[in-house]
Amino acid sequence: MDVGELGEFGLIELVTKRFAPTAHVLLGPGDDAAVVQAPDGRVVISTDMLIEGRHFRRDWSSAHDVGRKAAAQNLADIAAMGANPTALVVGLGVPATLDVDWVAQFSDGFATECELVGARIVGGDIVRAELITIAVTVLGDLQGRPAVTRTGAKPGDVIAMAGRLGWAAAGLAILGRGFRSPRVLVDAHRVPEPPYAAGVSAAIHGATSMIDISDGLVSDVRHLAVASGCSMHVHSNLLVVDTPVAEAAAAFNADPLTWVLTGGDDHALVATFPARGGLPDGFIMIGEVLEGDAGVMVDGQAVEASGGWDHFRAEKP
Amino acid sequence: MDVGELGEFGLIELVTKRFAPTAHVLLGPGDDAAVVQAPDGRVVISTDMLIEGRHFRRDWSSAHDVGRKAAAQNLADIAAMGANPTALVVGLGVPATLDVDWVAQFSDGFATECELVGARIVGGDIVRAELITIAVTVLGDLQGRPAVTRTGAKPGDVIAMAGRLGWAAAGLAILGRGFRSPRVLVDAHRVPEPPYAAGVSAAIHGATSMIDISDGLVSDVRHLAVASGCSMHVHSNLLVVDTPVAEAAAAFNADPLTWVLTGGDDHALVATFPARGGLPDGFIMIGEVLEGDAGVMVDGQAVEASGGWDHFRAEKP
Repeated sequence: MDVGELGEFGLIELVTKRFAPTAHVLLGPGDDAAVVQAPDGRVVISTDMLIEGRHFRRDWSSAHDVGRKAAAQNLADIAAMGANPTALVVGLGVPATLDVDWVAQFSDGFATECELVGARIVGGDIVRAELITIAVTVLGDLQGRPAVTRTGAKPGDVIAMAGRLGWAAAGLAILGRGFRSPRVLVDAHRVPEPPYAAGVSAAIHGATSMIDISDGLVSDVRHLAVASGCSMHVHSNLLVVDTPVAEAAAAFNADPLTWVLTGGDDHALVATFPARGGLPDGFIMIGEVLEGDAGVMVDGQAVEASGGWDHFRAEKP
Repeated sequence: MDVGELGEFGLIELVTKRFAPTAHVLLGPGDDAAVVQAPDGRVVISTDMLIEGRHFRRDWSSAHDVGRKAAAQNLADIAAMGANPTALVVGLGVPATLDVDWVAQFSDGFATECELVGARIVGGDIVRAELITIAVTVLGDLQGRPAVTRTGAKPGDVIAMAGRLGWAAAGLAILGRGFRSPRVLVDAHRVPEPPYAAGVSAAIHGATSMIDISDGLVSDVRHLAVASGCSMHVHSNLLVVDTPVAEAAAAFNADPLTWVLTGGDDHALVATFPARGGLPDGFIMIGEVLEGDAGVMVDGQAVEASGGWDHFRAEKP
């Protein structure tokens, strides 16, 4: 059955029945709006939009994968504030000819990813569109802590990261050349694995600034540098080039470090910490914050502003 | 200049500089997420998606109109819960060839509408899309009151409404026949005027259920009837057919009551109140809640489920 036959209200029922309420949800889907707990009197909010052909391809990713990715990249934004994701709303634009099963699988994938962090979908909107269009908004709970913004890094801090880099970029390169393996890299492009728990850990540990790596390490660390007014020095010998990434780069005669430094979509977390406090579990040091012009230096060299994606200028494959 | 030349970060700056912070905004745009006050420990949340050609036409509505409408239909959902809108996030998909001025005017219209209720945009996402795609999520504050849901209507309650009906439908009919006047009706299609303050007034006055009329009076009152498990009786002689609507219907040899009963997009509020409490300012009685099958009766006749828009089945002009 296609979504045109099922109709708007049938689709809404299909999607919402996949989402059980949690303690944070005071009123779930089905009314003009939902009501979510905000225990400390504040709520963290972030939004992202994904469009078929630009942010995912149906021949490369299953509906379940797309659902997981759409949730993951939003949940990672909440983690990057040091907050705990609580609830999400989803706007979904779908062609009338789309099979209802795609929507069901998408919803299942979305729910699966949300369950990893105990967050729930509480509302949405479904409209007809030419291309599948997904707009996710996520709420989070700071649990009484200050938000970890991009602005608090200070000279003398260490730069550290949790999660992985270069995997999604390698997977995208593999798919772009018509291959489907190594599977671990292709899967990393299809479904990122943000280190969700590391966000709250970093906040508790006193992180002075934090960001999630969606556009690329250099590009996103530059956001920290500019917002904090510091010079961020990354040392490539401290960056981990994981074996699958190194092997794929060798096979393609590519530089794995380019993937690690500029590849987006892995949603690792990068944070700065005071030098004397050590690092929370899961973080490794990759550099330090110094006085100087706001910008990123890799191995002592200034890096061009183009080290990352601008979705309008660079055509993202 | 088109948006492709300006680039993603230039666009974000263009948009966000239009939005000043308010007391509710603890952290505005520019980080991984925003932080918004939720003074009573809860937050109301709703989301809507609008797509060019389906929800608006660029030859019928200015960018400023589209911005106002995108904000208004979301703010109305918060009002329909008896809450006060506080903050919004916007996902915007735009063609690379779109003139930057369209985005600027859209943002100004969006900000203008939000200022009517003291709400502010706190974040967003801008991506490239084939058609202009707008995803709005809005937060609201219940100010310590219970949410007014769709489920609380009881036999014996009166049904009342605030705002206007049939105006947007008349305006759409006028535009659809190639006319541009009467201007008041065309403008009503372009920019709805939800009775924002009536939502909180209704809640304070003890409304037992409430909804905003986005799909049509009959269709949306049916939602109240089904959610509350009551029979909703609307009397057409209590419905106001405003003079411009009556005149346009006469000119088109149409039935103005059809526009009033089934026309969407005016975002009037319909609520139920205990019979003995009177009505808050701005509300007029249009019927009563009785025991019986969950459904809508107009002048004693059951009305087909099709009295309203299903965005997948009915092609909305």
